[in-house]
Amino acid sequence: MADDNVVYVGTKKSPMDYVLAIVTQFNRGSDEVVLKARGGAISRAVDAAEIVKNRFLKDLQILDITTGTEELENEDGTTSNVSSISITLGKTAAGAAGGSNQPPKT
Amino acid sequence: MADDNVVYVGTKKSPMDYVLAIVTQFNRGSDEVVLKARGGAISRAVDAAEIVKNRFLKDLQILDITTGTEELENEDGTTSNVSSISITLGKTAAGAAGGSNQPPKT
Repeated sequence: MADDNVVYVGTKKSPMDYVLAIVTQFNRGSDEVVLKARGGAISRAVDAAEIVKNRFLKDLQILDITTGTEELENEDGTTSNVSSISITLGKTAAGAAGGSNQPPKT
Repeated sequence: MADDNVVYVGTKKSPMDYVLAIVTQFNRGSDEVVLKARGGAISRAVDAAEIVKNRFLKDLQILDITTGTEELENEDGTTSNVSSISITLGKTAAGAAGGSNQPPKT
């Protein structure tokens, strides 16, 4: 799942599995961790980022969020587009852009 | 679904319904349209934003993406957290931050 400081989020595992992977990366000394997800897993990536930020590493910020479209080749040779997201989490306040650290609204 | 220049994205309708709502808002003269979604609909909001940007309004950019956590009250009075996303689409290049306009990777 992890590739340097990248955590690929899919739909098979629970959000907490990805939360654990993110926390582990930071505990190993990474300054930034990038979550990458596609299609239906995009919601799970946002969940994981929010859970880590709100409950585990409270000094964490979302430094950047970018989206894109990737072309996937199907087994029959045709291609289809899928959306992708990349969420950069980091401890430094510097460079905080795009994403904002919104506490849960009560 | 639309509220001024906000399009609330849910899971019941198809992405193309939201694409149509976004395009309609821009055709009515809005400079910016904000997509809001929660939970599992987050992926659909990203899909809609990407489809509009890549296939309908090519001069459109994602100006900002923010995420958050909202507390929902359940019928039994307990509360649960749900992630939320807000994607700001706009035609002006000025103020492009956070989100980036990535063409489909071929």
